[in-house]
Formats: sequence, structure tokens, C-alpha cells
Amino acid sequence: GGGGAESLDYEVIENYAYREAQAKRSKLFNWYYAMLKWLIALLIGVGTALAAVFINLAVENFSGWKYAVTFSIIQHSYFLGFVVYALFNLALVLTSVFTVTQFAPAAAGSGIPEIKGYLNGVDTHGILLFRTLIGKVFGSIGSVGGGLALGKEGPLVHTGACIASLLGQGGSTKYHFSSSWLRPFESDRERRDLVTCGCAAGVAAAFRAPVGGVLFALEEVTSWWRSQLMWRVFFTSAIVAVVVRTAMAWCKSGKCGHFGSGGFIIWDISGGQEDYSFKELLPMAIIGIIGGLFGALFNQLTLYITSWRRNYLHKKGNRVKIIEVLLISLMTSVISFGLPLLRKCSPCPNSEANPDIDCPRPPGTDGNFVNFFCSTDKEYNDLATIFFNTQDDAIRNLFSAKTFHEYSAQSLLTFLVMFYSLAVVTFGTAVPAGQFVPGIMIGSTYGRLVGIFVVKYYMKLNVDEGTYALLGAASFLGGSMRMTVSLCVIMVEITNNLKLLPLIMLVLLISKAVGDFFNEGLYEEQARLRGIPLLESRPKQFMRSMIAQEACKNQQVISFPRIVKVSEILYVLRSNKHNGFPVVGHGRNGEELVIGLMLRSHLLVLLHSKRDFQSSPFPCDPRGVTSRHIWSDFVKPISSKGMTIDDIHLTEDEKEMYIDLAPFLNPCPYVVPEDMSLAKVYNLFRQLGLRHIFVVPRPSRVIGLITRKDLLFEE
Amino acid sequence: GGGGAESLDYEVIENYAYREAQAKRSKLFNWYYAMLKWLIALLIGVGTALAAVFINLAVENFSGWKYAVTFSIIQHSYFLGFVVYALFNLALVLTSVFTVTQFAPAAAGSGIPEIKGYLNGVDTHGILLFRTLIGKVFGSIGSVGGGLALGKEGPLVHTGACIASLLGQGGSTKYHFSSSWLRPFESDRERRDLVTCGCAAGVAAAFRAPVGGVLFALEEVTSWWRSQLMWRVFFTSAIVAVVVRTAMAWCKSGKCGHFGSGGFIIWDISGGQEDYSFKELLPMAIIGIIGGLFGALFNQLTLYITSWRRNYLHKKGNRVKIIEVLLISLMTSVISFGLPLLRKCSPCPNSEANPDIDCPRPPGTDGNFVNFFCSTDKEYNDLATIFFNTQDDAIRNLFSAKTFHEYSAQSLLTFLVMFYSLAVVTFGTAVPAGQFVPGIMIGSTYGRLVGIFVVKYYMKLNVDEGTYALLGAASFLGGSMRMTVSLCVIMVEITNNLKLLPLIMLVLLISKAVGDFFNEGLYEEQARLRGIPLLESRPKQFMRSMIAQEACKNQQVISFPRIVKVSEILYVLRSNKHNGFPVVGHGRNGEELVIGLMLRSHLLVLLHSKRDFQSSPFPCDPRGVTSRHIWSDFVKPISSKGMTIDDIHLTEDEKEMYIDLAPFLNPCPYVVPEDMSLAKVYNLFRQLGLRHIFVVPRPSRVIGLITRKDLLFEE
Ligand SMILES: Nc1ncnc2c1ncn2[C@@H]1O[C@H](COP(=O)(O)OP(=O)(O)OP(=O)(O)O)[C@@H](O)[C@H]1O
Ligand SMILES: Nc1ncnc2c1ncn2[C@@H]1O[C@H](COP(=O)(O)OP(=O)(O)OP(=O)(O)O)[C@@H](O)[C@H]1O
Ligand SMILES: [Mg+2]
Ligand SMILES: [Mg+2]
Repeated sequence: GGGGAESLDYEVIENYAYREAQAKRSKLFNWYYAMLKWLIALLIGVGTALAAVFINLAVENFSGWKYAVTFSIIQHSYFLGFVVYALFNLALVLTSVFTVTQFAPAAAGSGIPEIKGYLNGVDTHGILLFRTLIGKVFGSIGSVGGGLALGKEGPLVHTGACIASLLGQGGSTKYHFSSSWLRPFESDRERRDLVTCGCAAGVAAAFRAPVGGVLFALEEVTSWWRSQLMWRVFFTSAIVAVVVRTAMAWCKSGKCGHFGSGGFIIWDISGGQEDYSFKELLPMAIIGIIGGLFGALFNQLTLYITSWRRNYLHKKGNRVKIIEVLLISLMTSVISFGLPLLRKCSPCPNSEANPDIDCPRPPGTDGNFVNFFCSTDKEYNDLATIFFNTQDDAIRNLFSAKTFHEYSAQSLLTFLVMFYSLAVVTFGTAVPAGQFVPGIMIGSTYGRLVGIFVVKYYMKLNVDEGTYALLGAASFLGGSMRMTVSLCVIMVEITNNLKLLPLIMLVLLISKAVGDFFNEGLYEEQARLRGIPLLESRPKQFMRSMIAQEACKNQQVISFPRIVKVSEILYVLRSNKHNGFPVVGHGRNGEELVIGLMLRSHLLVLLHSKRDFQSSPFPCDPRGVTSRHIWSDFVKPISSKGMTIDDIHLTEDEKEMYIDLAPFLNPCPYVVPEDMSLAKVYNLFRQLGLRHIFVVPRPSRVIGLITRKDLLFEE
Repeated sequence: GGGGAESLDYEVIENYAYREAQAKRSKLFNWYYAMLKWLIALLIGVGTALAAVFINLAVENFSGWKYAVTFSIIQHSYFLGFVVYALFNLALVLTSVFTVTQFAPAAAGSGIPEIKGYLNGVDTHGILLFRTLIGKVFGSIGSVGGGLALGKEGPLVHTGACIASLLGQGGSTKYHFSSSWLRPFESDRERRDLVTCGCAAGVAAAFRAPVGGVLFALEEVTSWWRSQLMWRVFFTSAIVAVVVRTAMAWCKSGKCGHFGSGGFIIWDISGGQEDYSFKELLPMAIIGIIGGLFGALFNQLTLYITSWRRNYLHKKGNRVKIIEVLLISLMTSVISFGLPLLRKCSPCPNSEANPDIDCPRPPGTDGNFVNFFCSTDKEYNDLATIFFNTQDDAIRNLFSAKTFHEYSAQSLLTFLVMFYSLAVVTFGTAVPAGQFVPGIMIGSTYGRLVGIFVVKYYMKLNVDEGTYALLGAASFLGGSMRMTVSLCVIMVEITNNLKLLPLIMLVLLISKAVGDFFNEGLYEEQARLRGIPLLESRPKQFMRSMIAQEACKNQQVISFPRIVKVSEILYVLRSNKHNGFPVVGHGRNGEELVIGLMLRSHLLVLLHSKRDFQSSPFPCDPRGVTSRHIWSDFVKPISSKGMTIDDIHLTEDEKEMYIDLAPFLNPCPYVVPEDMSLAKVYNLFRQLGLRHIFVVPRPSRVIGLITRKDLLFEE
């Protein structure tokens, strides 16, 4: 993470400047604006899809070369082969960690907790910048290509979000279009919608799962949701699917170099198990329980390690971060190359009985049955098949149907232990890292293990080990990330086997329930650790018995009068860190009235521009404002610190002048009576995505009552 | 519909009685309550699944007998066959319309607009009663079994919702458990969640599409959504899938009589088209456009006809309703039996080239190639294949793959025109009626028509007419109901063909966009017509420039003092129809203060029970309240009128007594300052699901400020 976090303002600040800006918008502009939303959704889809294809191609080509070179060298010397393999990995990982630490610190990790925070109303500095996008794309090529125990799917969600926010801003923070026709998304609220589209696009591109993407954005990432938005998010995902499919069709014709072996469906197991018997539900439930336990353990371990890293290791500077990653890379190379060497090869299955199977696989392909350190030609090394391979291919091999007894229980167990440890250790290092693919690896390993036992004991059934591997993968992800519907749909979309839907559901229900018993989901835990203050969707129980006043008990409210001296503003802004200040004026009869809320960031803009300084302490003409400011002056760029009080430099004369705050303040922030229960206040705050609520005395009279009837205007 | 509509109260009324009730709840009760939520979700799933299986079996058996008898009679006399066929239909339809008109008027139609209204905050009288459930189940058996142009899927959603609300209430309005352990869901807010589960269960059971069910509830029906709820809804859907699958496995062994020919996947077309070329995108886009046009036309026509029915025809009483339905049934019989008679039979396809095809189909089965009024044995009547068949089987035939040229363009066109007209006319009659299946029928007909042309002109391609039929079905539903993601998933789940996902998405995007150009979605139009005041999720544009005060401009607020004479309450309640009244009291220093909101329904409970009458006009001891009332006294049963002022009978002496309202009122309704923009008020009202908002003067001071930090309590 890149430092502090600040709340976003999802409320529309209906001040004079904003209303003028709205009034000036022509009919044409409104129409154009509606179109632009769709155009931007289209561009988000195209951009994210291309980013995904680019990352995919780069990773596949790098690892393709790597394995090709290594395999050709080990014909002569295994030691030399290992050296080349390890160096290749080190080089790739080094580019990744170097990019991240030197150039884009916010690109480390998966980025999903930060995006989740953004969509919950907290902006973490740096997460949606252009440089983060660059760091994320090139960083994940390095870290995934370098064979670390992490995936590229999480970073793709972040990538999608970055692309969306940059498109919405009309460019990066520094270089952007200045015309309001090209950057009309100037409120946090509109940007939020775009980022939601971007997340969905990321998942859709990563797993080629458009519906899964929509659901992921809906279930896991976003905190507010409207069904109109669903329609737009869906459109974006559909575009992603079309672009990725087209790119893949183009690549299939050999124009992209090495390209892996998956089709549009990443891990197609439609040839697998068709049906299941009631007896099998028991082992499947056991897979669910294992998934819940292993997932919860994973969350807990990574939480400890990450918090240790943050508090000790990473405080020592970038050099330590780089050395750490390089050591882990070396360790990964040693384990993934060394362990298969210790394993005895198995003889290939009878090729007459299984005519589809190529064993050992011909050099230069990426299927099952890798011949590695075997004495004869008709043997394969089952540990190398999963360990000494890209993760995508390893998963494909683990999921593969009709390959009974390909893996020995011993190899799977070794792999499970080693890979689980590697995944835990790798998590939280300074490289872009997703947890989906490692999770699928871990889960499918123990799933296949269970499958082996089922085949052994329930002999008569039409059981397929690959199906169990898939269920295992679902269970681990469910146990760690605690998603349900979206994960279920993603699983179905990546394997193209709808018949397994009820089974996946069952496994997910169990693993989530078991996991919830121990701790929170991975992303929530990580967000908490990183100091991202997520607001849950429901108030805590004890809030029912608290009142609003108690939440701000010891507060000395700092407010401004309507017309205020510049020096006083300076003094107040320096003396505290609050981001909003009530403004108190006078009514017609001279009585005191709260006339609105002034944001710190808007005050800073006023102080910086100096255009509104006046020498008399009397109200100004609000119409003058529109000639001095345009609305976009007040808009803060996404995820940057913005101006601070130290950027303001004023002369003594200027400090003696006045500002009339009336045209700039938010005239109607939401208010609650002092004795409203905190649970209700929480609901108000959370459902509407507010940043400030005023606690005020009980009203003395009711001017009117608004009911449903009053809000229905029939055209 | 069954009369007026009234708003629901999603706000928790935190008055004295409620707080006492909460405080008395033990830890054990809270735990039990959390478990009970899941238990009820399970029961909703099981109940809805069983209802669906029951309806399905009944329909399949009735129509199975009907067609078997008719087919055996027409061997001798076509006229006699027709008479039997028409009488059979009339009898079934008569039971349906009789049940509905005499016993459960709220069971007419699909019920989805009403449920949508319920989940938007408007309770239509009668929709969630036990008798409505009964009427819905038996009514749809009659209307679907009787061969009308309507489906059983919409009614199943309503059925699921009824089951959910009855389970949540612990029984029907009259007969229910009285222990609070068995009926703990006593607020509208909790019941809303259950009804959402019920809707999802309905769709999941109707289409055997669990994920589709969740998405339907989310996208189309509900207005508020939390991701915790998603998890519970998902659980319910999974249960439905398991129960339905188990029941079907049991039925497959022949224990259920006639059972249709579908498996768990209703219209499996996984054997269809595997791939598509870019050239095909054009005809597919055309299908999308046709779908949008036909769908919008359908909405418009049904709107006119329904409004004519409501305003003229149905005012004349139940007898007219019954006659109307019987006439339509007769017309349907004549058309579906008569038109195929006019059609010349086609020779069966070459059985050597297509060994899978059984032509003509053997008697007693329900496949393609029906031999009806043909001169020779080796012929089939293509119009009869779709028209003289149950709708499920007709759709299966239309979707069927590898049956090129089975249908002539002429037959399809005839069918399209006739069935479209029948569907329009049947819509809005006094029987339970869904629009999904008719929509799929219509859509797949023109889809297959387009497919025929594609096969003809793009000869070289691997085109399958069944795939085009599927796309047509999607396009019509999209053009009429305007759903996107959920429809897409439902389509994939009912046909088990994930490869078509991007195509379905494309078609849906186009058809929805085209349809939106003309009018609103079917359910919104119908809800408007029925006087269900749905609040959209976003405020209208002009509300930005209105203020709260303008919405209640000419209002004379009617309020109560804290201690009020019974006769005055009676007078006020008689003299207006408002449902909420501000209560004004006095603060410590004698100043006037708004102390809360009193609901009419709660006042009626107080007047009816008389327990709180007191002779002195002084504040009562609130602790006494808990001995006089339990919280559930104040809970209104779902979708019944509840008490009215006419149910109150008081003596003159009683009228002279007083009531202290303080313990019963909602002490903190949400308030807005008088000059807040109406758009913001709307957001508050809509997002939080409120019933009343007080418009009050601007506050004079700010007691405190609540920000995100103040709402985060770390345990
Ligand atoms: N004008 C004010 N006068 C008195 N106390 C304030 C004022 N504004 C905020 N506070 C209090 O100071 C604390 C921090 O305020 P701050 O404005 O930084 O909010 P925050 O929760 O950190 O959110 P953010 O800074 O992201 O908007 C909160 O507890 C808040 O109640
Ligand atoms: N106590 C009151 N004093 C004055 N006007 C009121 C009062 N209560 C409601 N009204 C007004 O009367 C109209 C109808 O009120 P009513 O209480 O019937 O609300 P509604 O919108 O019909 O919702 P529902 O009756 O379903 O709660 C509304 O326009 C409302 O502003
Ligand atoms: Mg702060
Ligand atoms: Mg009313």
C-alpha cells in the first residue's frame, strides 16, 4: 500500500458552482454524456481484454522459452539446466520487484482489498494511478513468468479498475484532457461506477468468465449496487469476452509465439464425470470441510506473516524487499526442480487401453506425462508434471479427466505441502500477486487426493479424479475468499461443466461455513491489516443501544462563520486534520442557522486560487462565482493526496482579507437528531455512502411529511 | 389484484415496547434465531421445490392423458377427437378460473409485478395469503394443463414468495403458531428477506436453474440487496436444485405416471452448434432487433388490453371473467387443433441419413415429427408438432438440433402469428399465468425462421436451426422483460450450452436496447397499471431543482400531542386517511419538541385493546407498558388489510379518557431540512426503504459531526 487512506465523497455537493455548471449543460451534452458512459464501458472492456491478452502472451512466451531451454539443456546436464532455470526465474522476478519497489509501490499484492476499499468509500493513495497500472501489468508478467507461487488474476482486477478510472478521468493525474467534454466523470460517485465495471472486466478477462465477472464485482467487490449498473457492467463483460475470444482465435493461427494449450474455456473438463451417486456426497462434503480448514489456515498464516513483514521487514527499505523476493524465487526454483529429481518415475499407462493419451508427452508440447529424470523413454515423472510446469498447465493436468492413477498419492501430498508453504511465504512480498491460481492449485491437489481414495474404495462408480480436483479447487477458494455465487459461476465457466453446478454449490456452502467459523475472508483480513476502514453492510448489535450523540461525545465541533477571515481559515486548517467543517450563518430574523458543510479540499482550492478574496466582510454576489471558477477546479484527482495546507503561500495582506463561503459549501448535508440510535445513523451513512453527518438538536416542529405518494410524479 | 396497496415499514421502530422486547431476548434466543433463518431458508427451498414438482407432475399427467385420449380417438373420428380435446381443456380451465375468481382473486396473473412491489415497499392486499398460495398452485395446474397460451414459471415465483412469507409468519393469517419462538420474523424488513429467498427458489424450481434464480431475484425483483442475503438466497436455490433433482430421479423410475421427456436440464441443446463465424453475427443481431420490436409490441398490446379489461370487462363481475376465459380456451382449442388440419403433411426425412430420428414418432411418446391428419404413415405434420403438443415439448422440438428443414417457413409463420395473438389475448385473464414459456415459444419460432434463412444462404456454415431458436427465445424475453444477466444465465442453464453465452449476451443487449426505446419492461408497465407505486432506484432529473418543502407544499400537518384524548384520536383517524402522525411534546424547559411519529396501525391497536386508557392527562410510567403489551401485538399480518377505524367500538366514558403515546411512537424518524433538494430526499427514502420523512426547519447548531472514524468500533 502507498500510505494513508481518505474517504471519498459519494454525495453530490449541490452548491452554487455545481448548480450553475449543471444549468449550463445543454441538452446535447446530456445526450452525449449518456452515450459517453456506454463508450467508456466499451473502452474499459477493450482495454482490459487487451491488457489480459498481453499479460497472458508475455507470460506464456517467457515460460515457454524457459521450459524449452531448460528441457533441452537437461538432456546433457541436469545441474546446468537448473542453473539456467533458476537464473531465468531470478531475472524475471527481479524486473517485477524492481518495477514495483522503484516505480509503483501501490502495485504490490493483488490490489483487491484496496479496490474493495475504494468501492466502500475509502481512497488509498496511489492505487488508481497510471504508474500503478504500468507497474501492475509488467510486474505481474515478471512475477508469474518467474514461476512464483502466485497468480495473475487478482492483479488483472486491479488493472481493470485502473484502466476504468483513467478512462473516466480522461487521462492520468498529470496528463489529461482538459475539455469537460472529454472528462465528464467528475464526481466520486460516477467514478465508482466505472471502477465497478473495471473490476468485472478484470475477472471476465482473467478467467474468460463474463457472468462470473459481473457476479464477482457484485458479490465481492462493490458495496453499493443498482440494477442499471448491472446492465452496464454486463455490457463491459460481454465486450471483454468478445475481444478475448477474437484475440485468441487470431493467436491460434500461430501468430503469437508460444501460447499455452487452453482454449476459450481455460480448464475445459466437459469430458469428465457426467453423473454422481449419493454415496459420493460424503467424500465431497469432506472436501468442503478440508477446504474450509485449509482456507481459514491460509488466511491466518498470511495475516501473521504480512503483519510481521509490514512491521519489521519492510520498514527496512526497498533493498530488503528485493532481496526477500529473490530469495523466495531461488527457493521456489530449487523446490520445483529439485523435488521431482527425488521422485521415482512411473511407467506410462498401457497405450492400447488409452489411445488418447500421449505418454511421455512429446518435447515442445505442454500436456500431461512429463518425462523428467527418468531412466527409460516409456516413463513419466508425476511430480514434475505438476511442479515443473506453468501453473495453468499444471491445473489443466490436475483437472484432466480419464487419467486415472496418473498421480501417486505420495506425489500429490508432497506437492500440497510444499506448494502451500510457498504460497504462504510468497504472499505479501513486493510483487503483484493473485491468490486465485495458487488457491486452485492447492485445492485441486487435495481434491485429487480424495478422488484417488474414492476411486479406490467405491470402485464400481463412474468417478473421475479430475472432477474431484475441481471440487477441491472450489472448496479452497471458498474457504479462503468466502465467495459463493460468483465463485460458483466462475468455476462453471472455467471448466464448462454445468452438470457439476449443484456439487460445486454444496462444496462451497460447506467450506464457507467452516471457514467463517474461524476468521474473516482473505480480503477483509488484508484490508483490516492495511488500515483500510471498511464499513460492513450492517450495524453491529451494540449500536442499537447507543445514540448518535455518544459517537461524538468528546467532540468540540470546529465550525466557520459564513464570512471568514483568510488568516482564520489558515489557522483552523493547520490546527487540526478534520476534513469537513460546519458553516454557521444567520437567518432572516438574525437567529443562528447551520447553513452547510465546507470541505477542507474545497477550502484549499479557494486559498490557492485567491480569486475569491474580498476586502469587505459582507456577503458577495454568488453570480460572480461562475466567472471565477469552473466546477472542475474543485474536483480532486483519484487516489492522489491532492493539495495540502503546506502548498498554500499567502502574503500578510492576503491573510487580512475575507472569503464568503456561501457559494461553495454543501448547503444540505444529511442531519440526524442527537438521540437517534446509532444503528440508524450507521444505516444512513453506509447505505448512502456519506462522508459527514451532522448531529443536531431535535426539531421543534414539523413543516411537512413526505411519503411515497409525494415522491411519485406521474409524467 | 385484490384492491388497494399500502406501504410497508422497513424501518425498525425503536420504541419502548420494541426495546423491551429486544432486551428480554436471551443469548440462546439470538443463537436460535440465527439458526432459524437458515432452517427457514431450507424449508422455503424444499417447499417450493415440492410445489414445482407437484405442479409439473399434475400438468404433465393431465396433458399426457389428454393427448393420449385425443390421439386414440382421432384414429376413428377427427371431429369426436376435437370435441373431447376441447372439453378436456374447458374443464381444466374452468377449475382454474373458478378457483381464482371464487376463492383467491389475488392469484390471477403472474404475480411478479405484485411481488416486485412488495419488495419495493408496497403491500398489495391478498398477495401473500395462504389462499393465494392454494389458488396459485391449483389454478396454474388448470390453466397450463388446459393448454392456454401461458406458462407456469411466473406463478411459481409467486408460489415461492407465498411459501416464504407463510413460513416466516409461522402460519396463515388466521391459523398460526402463537409462540414467539416459532414466529420470530415480525418486522417487514425480515419478511422482505424471506420473500426474496422465495422468489429465487421459484425461478430455480421453475427452470431448474439455481444460479439463474439468484440472479433473477437480484436483478429483477428485489429493490434492496445485501451480500449476506445473497449467500442465503443461494443456499435456498441450491436446496431447490437438490430436491428437484432427487424427485426427478425418483420419477424417472416410472412412479409418477406420465412425466414429460426433459431431464434436469429442461431443454438440453448441448448437442447443437459448437461454433459460429463472424458472418453469423449479422442474422443474430437481426434476431435481437426483432426481439426488441416484438417484445415492446407485446408490452404495449397487453397494456392496452389489460387496462380495457380492468376498466370495462372485469367490472361486470366474476361471471364475465369466467365466460371470457372459457371463450379463450375454446378459441385456443380450435386454433391448435384446426390449423394443423389445414396443413399438408411432409414426408419423413431419409432415415438412413439420420439414424437418430424417429419419424413419425411412435404413439405414446412426445418427440418431434407428429403424425397428424396425414395420408400415409411415413409423413409428419410440422404444424401439429409444435401446435398440438404441450408447450414444454413444443419448445424442445423447436430447440432441437440436427433437425434441418423439419419445419417449413410457412408453418412457423402461421404459428408465430396465431400464438402471438393468443398470448396477447390470454394475458390478463383471471387465471394464474406466466409469460416466460409463451415468450420462449414466440421467440424460438421467429428464431428458427431466421435460422432457416441462414441455413439457406450461408450454406457452408455449421449452422443449427435449434441454436437460432434459442437466440430468438432470449431476444423476445429480453425485449419484453428487459432482464439481462439473469436471463442470460437462465438461458444457459436451461439449455446446458455455455458456449453460446457470448451470443446470448449480444442478442440480449440489442433486444433490451431496442425495447427500451419504446416502452418500459413488462413488469413495470403492469405494476403501473395495477396502481402499484414502484419507486425507481434513481431520482428523476427535475428533482434536483426542487426542494423538500415543495413536495409537501399545501400540506396542513396533522399531529398529536403526547397525551391525547381518545375522542380526539377517533376524530382525527376518521377525518383523514393518513398513516402516520407526528407527535409533539415539550422539552425540559417547556419548549416545543417533535418527539416522534405514531403509526395509524399502532393507534388502532391501542384503541382496540383499551389497555392503555388512563383517566389523568399526565405521563404514564413506560415500564407498565410491557406488562400490558407484547411487541407482537403491534405486528401487522402480511398483505391483509389489518384493522380499520370501523372495527373500533368505544363507550362514551372511554372516549373521555387519555392515552400517553410516548412509549409507542417511533422516537426518531429520519428528518430532512426544508430546503434539501428533493433528489437527496428521494435517495434517502428509496435507499433506506422508508415510509415517512419529516421535513423540519434548518437546525440552529451542530452538536457533533459523525464521520467514518466514528462508526468504526474495533473489538
Ligand atoms: N469540524 C469538526 N469538528 C470537530 N470534530 C470533527 C470535525 N470534523 C471531524 N471531526 C472528528 O474528527 C475525527 C476525524 O475527522 P476526519 O474529518 O479526519 O474524518 P475521518 O473519519 O478520518 O474521514 P476522512 O478524513 O477520510 O474524511 C472524527 O472522529 C470526527 O468526528
Ligand atoms: N400527518 C399528516 N399530516 C398532513 N399530511 C399528511 C400526513 N400524513 C400524510 N400526509 C400526506 O397525505 C398524503 C397521503 O398520506 P399517506 O399516509 O396515505 O401516505 P401514502 O403515500 O399513501 O403511503 P401509505 O399510505 O402507503 O403509507 C401524502 O401526500 C402525505 O404527504
Ligand atoms: Mg481523516
Ligand atoms: Mg395512503
